Amino acid sequence: MAASPLPAANLPASPWAQAPSRAEQRQAKRDAVLHVAAQMFNERGFHATSLDDIAARLNVTKPTLYYYVKNKDAILLACVKKGLDMTLEGIEASRAGGGNALDQLRACMRAYAEVVTQPFGMCLIRVGDEEVPEPSRTELRRLKSEIDHAFRRLVEQGVQEGVLAPCDPKMAAFVIAGALSWIGRWYQPAGAYSADQIIDQCTQLLLQGVLARPAQE
Amino acid sequence: MAASPLPAANLPASPWAQAPSRAEQRQAKRDAVLHVAAQMFNERGFHATSLDDIAARLNVTKPTLYYYVKNKDAILLACVKKGLDMTLEGIEASRAGGGNALDQLRACMRAYAEVVTQPFGMCLIRVGDEEVPEPSRTELRRLKSEIDHAFRRLVEQGVQEGVLAPCDPKMAAFVIAGALSWIGRWYQPAGAYSADQIIDQCTQLLLQGVLARPAQE
Repeated sequence: MAASPLPAANLPASPWAQAPSRAEQRQAKRDAVLHVAAQMFNERGFHATSLDDIAARLNVTKPTLYYYVKNKDAILLACVKKGLDMTLEGIEASRAGGGNALDQLRACMRAYAEVVTQPFGMCLIRVGDEEVPEPSRTELRRLKSEIDHAFRRLVEQGVQEGVLAPCDPKMAAFVIAGALSWIGRWYQPAGAYSADQIIDQCTQLLLQGVLARPAQE
Repeated sequence: MAASPLPAANLPASPWAQAPSRAEQRQAKRDAVLHVAAQMFNERGFHATSLDDIAARLNVTKPTLYYYVKNKDAILLACVKKGLDMTLEGIEASRAGGGNALDQLRACMRAYAEVVTQPFGMCLIRVGDEEVPEPSRTELRRLKSEIDHAFRRLVEQGVQEGVLAPCDPKMAAFVIAGALSWIGRWYQPAGAYSADQIIDQCTQLLLQGVLARPAQE
């Protein structure tokens, strides 16, 4: 995740390559704290998870945790923020992938659903804006609104291109993102369906609807 | 809500009708506490709402609240339970309404969506099972599973009747209930769309999908 100060990736790795800097090491450790915390919040709920629990799973002491994070609220906020950043990166990549509105919408749906099946995305969809204090609340709402508008624009574009049925893009974006968000509530990494299978089926159901379609001639 | 000890409803109301019993009055007051609490949890989050806040909005003292509820956790649980009971009643009524699987599925979708646009339903969809301590967690999961299975059965039946496209009923039930649940996250009673408009559009989008359908000849 941290930007690398090393030479470009297409050069062979030097055996004299610099060891990761202190800042990079600290960032990697902070990421590990957030990742474990997100998993534990999702498994047992935010309020039933203590900093002691998180420290114990990381095999560190609570004072060590405080070197990376301020408190439990700050951890949750950082987890939600990571979920949002991952989503926005995924949406950006979907757009960059090109294609018509439907190709891009499919790619966006997949990117979004992939995030919500991962710990930071699960945190994101579990935490209501109203639970986050200002000024973070306004910031989260701004980022969520960016995601929402990306879906709306693709729906609008799809309707204009004639690949999507005429609809209210705001409602369609809510239905799509809502159904996909909910995956993060019930998805079990060790369950009977893989994330890929779930994403394929949910995307298909949202695009096609559940009604039988008249046979195309 | 409380069962009435008065004569059957088709008899004229007696001017000597019994005043509500003490138990009924207590029940009505407890319901008012839960209703206000649910609204406040939804507006500002569970953890930012204190019993003092709830008491203040009801114009009572905190000790008065304790006559009706044990503590804040018990209030939340009672709110979620009410949301579940309302949903199950709505599903039962949809079935009793009869019709083919599609009629019943539409009615069930509407009943579910109506609940999630109301305070207890909003609580229901905001609270993850993992946040609720045992033995209530098992009980909530049982009731949620009942709702889920009602949707699955209707989808299965619709596929058998040929009105719904062949699909995995489990996934279809998750997509439908997920998109409808999410309404409770963004619906604003004072917003630009009425609950009815939202429910109509979301139901339509889930049934038809967002893809353009070939013109039927």
